[in-house]
Amino acid sequence: MKSKLPHVGTTIFSLMSAMANECKAINLSQGFPDFTPSEYLLDQLSFHAHSGKNQYAPMNGIPELRQAIATLTQECYGRAIHPDTEITLASGATEALFVAIQAVVNPGDEVILLDPAYDSYAPAVTLAGGHCKHIALLPPNYQADWQQIEAAVSPKTRLIIVNSPHNPTATVFSDGDWQALASLAAKHDLYVISDEVYEHIVFDQNRNSAHCYPALRDRTFVISSFGKTFHATGWKLGYCIAPPMLSTEFRKIHQFVTFTSFTPAQYAVADMLNEHSDQVHGLGDFYRDKRDCFVNAMQRSRFTMLPSAGTYFALAEYSAISDKNDVDFCEELTRKHGVAAIPLSVFYKTPPNSRIIRFCFAKREQTLLDAAAKLCVL
Amino acid sequence: MKSKLPHVGTTIFSLMSAMANECKAINLSQGFPDFTPSEYLLDQLSFHAHSGKNQYAPMNGIPELRQAIATLTQECYGRAIHPDTEITLASGATEALFVAIQAVVNPGDEVILLDPAYDSYAPAVTLAGGHCKHIALLPPNYQADWQQIEAAVSPKTRLIIVNSPHNPTATVFSDGDWQALASLAAKHDLYVISDEVYEHIVFDQNRNSAHCYPALRDRTFVISSFGKTFHATGWKLGYCIAPPMLSTEFRKIHQFVTFTSFTPAQYAVADMLNEHSDQVHGLGDFYRDKRDCFVNAMQRSRFTMLPSAGTYFALAEYSAISDKNDVDFCEELTRKHGVAAIPLSVFYKTPPNSRIIRFCFAKREQTLLDAAAKLCVL
Ligand SMILES: CSCCC(=O)C(=O)O
Ligand SMILES: CSCCC(=O)C(=O)O
Repeated sequence: MKSKLPHVGTTIFSLMSAMANECKAINLSQGFPDFTPSEYLLDQLSFHAHSGKNQYAPMNGIPELRQAIATLTQECYGRAIHPDTEITLASGATEALFVAIQAVVNPGDEVILLDPAYDSYAPAVTLAGGHCKHIALLPPNYQADWQQIEAAVSPKTRLIIVNSPHNPTATVFSDGDWQALASLAAKHDLYVISDEVYEHIVFDQNRNSAHCYPALRDRTFVISSFGKTFHATGWKLGYCIAPPMLSTEFRKIHQFVTFTSFTPAQYAVADMLNEHSDQVHGLGDFYRDKRDCFVNAMQRSRFTMLPSAGTYFALAEYSAISDKNDVDFCEELTRKHGVAAIPLSVFYKTPPNSRIIRFCFAKREQTLLDAAAKLCVL
Repeated sequence: MKSKLPHVGTTIFSLMSAMANECKAINLSQGFPDFTPSEYLLDQLSFHAHSGKNQYAPMNGIPELRQAIATLTQECYGRAIHPDTEITLASGATEALFVAIQAVVNPGDEVILLDPAYDSYAPAVTLAGGHCKHIALLPPNYQADWQQIEAAVSPKTRLIIVNSPHNPTATVFSDGDWQALASLAAKHDLYVISDEVYEHIVFDQNRNSAHCYPALRDRTFVISSFGKTFHATGWKLGYCIAPPMLSTEFRKIHQFVTFTSFTPAQYAVADMLNEHSDQVHGLGDFYRDKRDCFVNAMQRSRFTMLPSAGTYFALAEYSAISDKNDVDFCEELTRKHGVAAIPLSVFYKTPPNSRIIRFCFAKREQTLLDAAAKLCVL
């Protein structure tokens, strides 16, 4: 059988979580909290399921949730969005990313990815018949070089995908990055997918977003998710904000990919946004404490921690410990030292010659201290 | 902007449900129950959400649920399936159908659809770069003519999609249909997608399935869903059963389309299958009563009810009432007479010249009687 994705194996997140489970290692690989969502959210889930909200939600999401998203976006970024024509719920940010890519990429189109890139982007482009042009962001700063990016644009380029706060590097776009993106996209008439699933987890600056740049709005799909925001990655509730014309194309495809997502969760998340939006706005502070806890504990190790400005990840350089490649080193860490992490090279088309891995610090303080203790003996 | 699906509008199910809501009509259009799932299922949902099952499930679904599906498939059809390599959970049958189509259809491939065909098949084929060949099943019997179907096979044909019990016609494949499908697929080396989401809702014969035909197993994706089985269409939990090689390709794509689905629901449905599989096996009886209630009440109308052998739908011929086309007639029914239904022509590439619409009888008896009363005055 001819594979549609011949070069694709099982995603690294599944592989490392399976290895962590097998070895009973502390799992700092796949990004998910080891603590629970708020009781209120869970109670509302139960309430709505028991109150008869178990049939299909509207294809674009329940109105209550779309309205709450519009309110939040206004609060965070001062952008007024029309909930009926510009917001579509999806079954996780993964689905929203997939659908947005299918909506704009035609066979032969080129798509610019900034490596290290989340591993779902390229296969989604391939399935649409497009080709990826990979621009490598390099350690230790992983800054985007917008001149280099522009040099990669060709007449066939149709889309650029960006991600800020950035997984896995934990960098956050500066105002200059957004401005450069906006002028590049306008100059070459590109669509933009802005993957902002960690939008509320920013430590050292204000939250920013493609929403803040009017020049981007007409051409951009902003993708976010409640899984990260409400500590419930298994809830698979994401969304896409895009101008009406783009949302129309997004919905045409979404309706035949999943149609809609788990109904009681839509109601529960709407309640959460309406009653506890403080939790959203406090997310940066919440995770800053966890970052500091983990990074401080790692000071006694021989890892060199790279700065984490956002997301719930931190990179660590390990060349003082091992000259293994990062994939082998992560396997050794998991099997021998009881801590699972994610190698960075798998997110590159052409990996740089570096010894860097990613730790997830969305964990209870005790988990972070236990993991750091194991890592400090290396 | 160039649309990827230029001929596609909003799915008829969304349009008719919206019209029904707007007009406060009794909604017998989009297929969903107006009663609630079992309390046990809802209680287990709440239980698992409150017990810390809110993070990513494994990409192919939790082991407990895959095992329960294997057990059910063994019970129903005597087929032993390996839960680790042959079963993948998806975010609704819609996602499973979409992914299976992406897995096997390459640009230029032809796919055979039997019209009236569920409206997600053709756009999914189009997005994969394939072309649909439509064979029309015709009233009043909607029987498949396998010679005609075989005549449509070309060297480019790669896939045939079948659906039994069939939505919207409410027919069920006979043993002869399955045999003909199996020999056709083997002779021309076709993949098969067997959409069996109504597999347990069969009235006048035993349940049957592609699972029962060993000749089909190596080439077939069997798609099913718990939404219909457990009266919870908003739960969006479907699955694909396919031999390991096909499941591998299915998973490569699924992992980048939704990755996984709502975790607490996976646990709740596993419990339901383990503790109350009687509900699954009693589904035919349960819905036969509803079919009989509706069809009997409609005897006093000027509609001619067509036989319903499975699914929770029944077709009705209305030429004694109106010579409007079915789309206009459904709008009139909804707006003037307070009952929403689904026109059949929208599921055809080339609609036959018939006056037939679909009613959903997955409703409380009182709802069915109220709807029939309104329809009987026409
Ligand atoms: C879909 S599993 C991956 C979770 C995640 O976003 C990450 O670990 O980066
Ligand atoms: C995805 S909404 C359609 C529900 C359904 O299967 C039907 O009404 O036929």
